[in-house]
Amino acid sequence: MKIKSVKGTNDYLPAEAELRDYLQNKILEVYTSNGYQRIMTPAIEDAENLDKSDGGENLNLIFNIMKRGDKLQKALDGGDKLFDLGLRYDLTLPLSRYFANNRDKLLLPAKCIQIGNVYRAERPQKGRLREFVQCDIDVIGSSSYSTEVELINTTAKALNEMGIGSFTVKINDRRILRSMLISCGFGEDSLDSISITFDKMDKIGKDGVMAELAEKGLDKAAIEKFGEVLDKPMTLDGLDGICGSDAVSNVKNIIDAVRELSGGKFNIEFDISLVRGQGYYTGTVFEVRSDKYSGAVAGGGRYDNLIGKFIGENVPAVGFSIGFERIFGILCESGYTIPDSKKKIAMLYEPEKIVTAIKEADKLRDKYRVTLIEKPKKLGKYLDKVKEAGYFGWCFAGEAIKELN
Amino acid sequence: MKIKSVKGTNDYLPAEAELRDYLQNKILEVYTSNGYQRIMTPAIEDAENLDKSDGGENLNLIFNIMKRGDKLQKALDGGDKLFDLGLRYDLTLPLSRYFANNRDKLLLPAKCIQIGNVYRAERPQKGRLREFVQCDIDVIGSSSYSTEVELINTTAKALNEMGIGSFTVKINDRRILRSMLISCGFGEDSLDSISITFDKMDKIGKDGVMAELAEKGLDKAAIEKFGEVLDKPMTLDGLDGICGSDAVSNVKNIIDAVRELSGGKFNIEFDISLVRGQGYYTGTVFEVRSDKYSGAVAGGGRYDNLIGKFIGENVPAVGFSIGFERIFGILCESGYTIPDSKKKIAMLYEPEKIVTAIKEADKLRDKYRVTLIEKPKKLGKYLDKVKEAGYFGWCFAGEAIKELN
Repeated sequence: MKIKSVKGTNDYLPAEAELRDYLQNKILEVYTSNGYQRIMTPAIEDAENLDKSDGGENLNLIFNIMKRGDKLQKALDGGDKLFDLGLRYDLTLPLSRYFANNRDKLLLPAKCIQIGNVYRAERPQKGRLREFVQCDIDVIGSSSYSTEVELINTTAKALNEMGIGSFTVKINDRRILRSMLISCGFGEDSLDSISITFDKMDKIGKDGVMAELAEKGLDKAAIEKFGEVLDKPMTLDGLDGICGSDAVSNVKNIIDAVRELSGGKFNIEFDISLVRGQGYYTGTVFEVRSDKYSGAVAGGGRYDNLIGKFIGENVPAVGFSIGFERIFGILCESGYTIPDSKKKIAMLYEPEKIVTAIKEADKLRDKYRVTLIEKPKKLGKYLDKVKEAGYFGWCFAGEAIKELN
Repeated sequence: MKIKSVKGTNDYLPAEAELRDYLQNKILEVYTSNGYQRIMTPAIEDAENLDKSDGGENLNLIFNIMKRGDKLQKALDGGDKLFDLGLRYDLTLPLSRYFANNRDKLLLPAKCIQIGNVYRAERPQKGRLREFVQCDIDVIGSSSYSTEVELINTTAKALNEMGIGSFTVKINDRRILRSMLISCGFGEDSLDSISITFDKMDKIGKDGVMAELAEKGLDKAAIEKFGEVLDKPMTLDGLDGICGSDAVSNVKNIIDAVRELSGGKFNIEFDISLVRGQGYYTGTVFEVRSDKYSGAVAGGGRYDNLIGKFIGENVPAVGFSIGFERIFGILCESGYTIPDSKKKIAMLYEPEKIVTAIKEADKLRDKYRVTLIEKPKKLGKYLDKVKEAGYFGWCFAGEAIKELN
């Protein structure tokens, strides 16, 4: 039998699992005390729902779950699809379905927290997992910019609690991005394709982006003008005449409010090069970049059309997702230790005295985490291992604690 | 698009999600303070591992995940299996694999906590879900009866914390069960099949069991003798001469110790009719039955051979799993409320005053969970909904809280 975990997934050792729990609880605590409420959806979703969800590239990464029994036989015989379920690739599609299914029972606007596993059949590489945790807050039923302000402010609070150091929030609006591209001379129907290329700016640089756009056979003059924008990114104030004033003043309002609330703890700035991959975003998009570690640690945006697919009427929605695995990775590498956690004690006992041992251990459990362990044959060697495992001390049941140092 | 969650899975509303978190945290807290440590494994496992795992009936309930790309094409062309992954049906197989994969990094005996989703393609019915949470503690690397004593005592502590009322622990040993069946006159090779039938005693009664055994074409005299045992269940003391003394004294030791630790808060008793379905159990098996609600709320046993399948040497192991969904169901139905949770306040604000509103809300957040909500058009109607959603009170930003009652 194979002893490794499935490719792209992880087994977590006790210290890692403890850190994951600690971080998720911190996030949940901040979100909950800020008035968002946790909801839960299944990790398995209807295959057709997933397929129709505007998930962009992620739709190619769905793990499909096979039909069973008669259904499978029928599909095999008839040449139909062999699967009818899939693992969710994010938490936004499930949330939209959830809202459609439960909106009569929810207080609107619905301010939801989701923390859960999602699955993508990514090519395994450092920092890309096939099973990973997302932590989202979303607000469904409000189109006011104040919703973005609160989402960004709350996410920033959670990030500040986690000790990843200083960070910057980047914000853009899909409508501004589209206007800018049109002002360069690109046609309406090429905008999605250009955005996909533009989104790779981080990885392939300006030259790579220009080359890919040329390969796509787009208008040369437009590409050239676009290159000028990349050299000297547009500011919000420079957008006059290019873009309708609604989207611009909306972003300005968000930046002003978030800046006032930030207390200097983090930055927020407009960035016309911010795309965010998902096809379902319709308005603001935002991302948090750690000032010390590369890559985004959180991202989100407004998706006003996705829920409409379920209920046939448009419902405004906006969400922000913390890149949990990125933060977990950063803290693991930096040797982060959980503050104020109870010290661990190994209490050794003789098996036939288990009752006394449990009673003795219970006496210490207000103050310590006490693990009962049968007295080993070779005490010295064993205590080395106990120390290695991060225990503060040990004792025989009923005797005094000896520190391991 | 389909708005219902996939058949056999649930969407959880905020109050339900909060109760699930509360209960899982309680369990984790008890287990952790008793010296067990949480580990985490992926929900997806290698399909062959799952297939070879002695999971009994559960092997027929595995959700298979399809191969992808070239692999899938090759399988389709060559008539091979179309899947290479599956969703885990319990947490014991993943734990065994995990132990094999990580044992050099673990302190032995490994005292592990697992809380996670498992998946079974059950025929949907009340109380049977296709995605559900299991909460397990396991000890790997100890064959002493003291391990069972501590597992049972710790699980009982967790159950006591959750307010499901009084309960009884039933205990048996697979070796005793087998000896009893052999003493009735059944052949060694029919024991597994008989156990599967015997396990249904709860559902189909004695007559059903007898009928099914007859259908299976087993020896009539043996069935008759077995019927006598069912009428007058054997006690531990009545097992002399039927069964080796090791298993009997082992169970006696466990019962004596657990009884002494229980402080009269719960019962423990021997029950020769206790089977537990899993094929991998080799020694003690146990189950917790609520005195008030029917069905098991926890179950477990010793599986000394499962880990050997991964590492080629036998490693003793024993585990206890809390039936989380059963307990969640009981508490939901009984209208359980979470003790000492912070009261919820709805704070209404004008969108353009979001900064002030957030600052005002933060002032109250030590004491309350404050949800910011844009001032609605029809205040009276909206406040009815706020009350319905379980809020304690409301206010305009910066003004005094008014109770909703």
